[in-house]
Amino acid sequence: MDYASRQSRLAAEIRNKKISCLLITHLPNVRYLCGFSGSSGALLLVAGRRGHSLTFFTDGRYTQQAGDEVQGAKIVIAGKPALFAAVERALKSSTEALGFEAEYLPYASFQQLRSLTRGQLRLKPAAGLVEQLRIRKDAEEVERIRSAVQLGSDLFPAALSAIRPGVAETEVAAALELNARRAGADGMSFETIVAAGVRSALPHGRASRQAIPASGFIILDYGVILAGYCSDMTRTVHVGPISAEHRRMYEAVHEAQVAGIQAVRPGVETGAVDRAGREILKSAGYDAYFTHSTGHGVGLEIHEQPRLAKGQKQKLEPGMVVTIEPGIYVPGDGGVRIEDMVLVTDSGRQVLTPTSKELITL
Amino acid sequence: MDYASRQSRLAAEIRNKKISCLLITHLPNVRYLCGFSGSSGALLLVAGRRGHSLTFFTDGRYTQQAGDEVQGAKIVIAGKPALFAAVERALKSSTEALGFEAEYLPYASFQQLRSLTRGQLRLKPAAGLVEQLRIRKDAEEVERIRSAVQLGSDLFPAALSAIRPGVAETEVAAALELNARRAGADGMSFETIVAAGVRSALPHGRASRQAIPASGFIILDYGVILAGYCSDMTRTVHVGPISAEHRRMYEAVHEAQVAGIQAVRPGVETGAVDRAGREILKSAGYDAYFTHSTGHGVGLEIHEQPRLAKGQKQKLEPGMVVTIEPGIYVPGDGGVRIEDMVLVTDSGRQVLTPTSKELITL
Repeated sequence: MDYASRQSRLAAEIRNKKISCLLITHLPNVRYLCGFSGSSGALLLVAGRRGHSLTFFTDGRYTQQAGDEVQGAKIVIAGKPALFAAVERALKSSTEALGFEAEYLPYASFQQLRSLTRGQLRLKPAAGLVEQLRIRKDAEEVERIRSAVQLGSDLFPAALSAIRPGVAETEVAAALELNARRAGADGMSFETIVAAGVRSALPHGRASRQAIPASGFIILDYGVILAGYCSDMTRTVHVGPISAEHRRMYEAVHEAQVAGIQAVRPGVETGAVDRAGREILKSAGYDAYFTHSTGHGVGLEIHEQPRLAKGQKQKLEPGMVVTIEPGIYVPGDGGVRIEDMVLVTDSGRQVLTPTSKELITL
Repeated sequence: MDYASRQSRLAAEIRNKKISCLLITHLPNVRYLCGFSGSSGALLLVAGRRGHSLTFFTDGRYTQQAGDEVQGAKIVIAGKPALFAAVERALKSSTEALGFEAEYLPYASFQQLRSLTRGQLRLKPAAGLVEQLRIRKDAEEVERIRSAVQLGSDLFPAALSAIRPGVAETEVAAALELNARRAGADGMSFETIVAAGVRSALPHGRASRQAIPASGFIILDYGVILAGYCSDMTRTVHVGPISAEHRRMYEAVHEAQVAGIQAVRPGVETGAVDRAGREILKSAGYDAYFTHSTGHGVGLEIHEQPRLAKGQKQKLEPGMVVTIEPGIYVPGDGGVRIEDMVLVTDSGRQVLTPTSKELITL
């Protein structure tokens, strides 16, 4: 990964914002900037006139891991919380304002910052600076995401073959997760959703011990983390004889999902992508059952910028990677969701998820 | 679960603190108070003179789940972020101060609160109010924790039998996680640690694709979530012929761990429990290699209050459930950690983890 370029671009960005010193505490941002993948640490970026310097603070549990992973930053193993050590370093730098990640730093930590800086540094809420870099994936990131998406798709056939009436949803999830591990995944990118029968009407139906019924929809929504990058996909299949109404539901979601994908290209507002699918569901009479937004960015985190939701004005740019995942959920009956990951290209889009979306009945 | 009692105790507590209205956004706290286990929602507790009222806010994805799970609170499915809806409700209540969870609410959300309340409500940082209730587990919680700990221990023999030189650490983790799922776990309580050979010197060595070497320590540190409650255990085993020095390392950690457990009883400062084990490691000449704290509380979250660390003054109380997990880590050689979960009882302690701690060589 090209950490040096990320670090320089961030330094330029904070100079523009007249912050000159930025505290980075959100761990995916820390990882993006210097490669550290552990669960405790903070970065301090000081951007002076003659260049910038980056220092990484962690504790004794991560001495070896920091040495192995961190690039482009001085490593400090602090005998105190990383936040405290970073602020002491900031106080010693010739800077006036200390930026912090307002969307992540808890209010209580802000109070600590205030007390530690004793008025010697102006605290400046800074939001989204690293996220703004992360939103457009570079070539190496796109390759990692492709590999994660491919692995996710590769796991689908075996998951399908685990689906049988009477089998617990968790058994399907277990088979999926075992295969993910065996194939080298770091882990799952979120709690696996296996929602069968009436439970498929739950948009977030984490796999439960309930058995798959003789007839109905089953939503599988899962992702893997591979070399730090997440995948996310959803397919809905049907067990038992399918009614005309269920078939109509499936086709409406399928059509809406394809319309969403077709709307993806540089310059288009994410709200317009959301609208494209929503209008299809409206003409089919299902819009009241589409109770969530259309999608989200994916990268080091399973949910990141941009949001694809009603009324969003943010414009798509090449290098963004987003999900397109409309769904309809009829309480007491069932639900359907179909989700792919899509890369915004210079001229349009590329669907990353290779798995077929034709209705599968088991 | 006795949600009504938790709700009343919290209401009494906030009346004492003259807050009268508390916004709860930290999801484990939301779950503790009303049972909601989804991933988006907030609670507003208004405590007036004549009683208290609790309202739960979430979005359309959780309509059914909220209806199934939430107890003792009015449910509002809001067409806007739960935080916004909750503040609007707070503005309508006859209250002057709105407390918020300062340790969790990001600074940016605090700014939103400030803008939404337009000076009509005084915002009061409140920290640890729900955590103070959660720190002492009630009988029903202790039973759930016992079940989770038992399940964790039950998984150990099969994990052991997966350990062989040449097998990837992830393969051991995969076997463990599959069995956990099959036994009904909601999931793992943290990323499974399988750290073999020189990797055992990493206190947080998540299972990697590295193969287990012919000789050395292997640390297994894992936990399950069962009915919402976490377990946490660590055992270290040795493959291949063990040197006298490795045997000495193991015995020192074992002795330190037992000393830590023996120090657990009501009224004892958590810092004293940490010291008990640390002194054993000091006399054995290993204290410089014990680079983390002794333990932490466990419940709905894998890491919760109290902290068992150097100099901590908090006193143990009956009903607390903590880990005791000293370790030593020699870079380039290997490490040992042994961890049990321990319940503080009226007269002393009860070790919850039934798995033997005698040295196992494979």
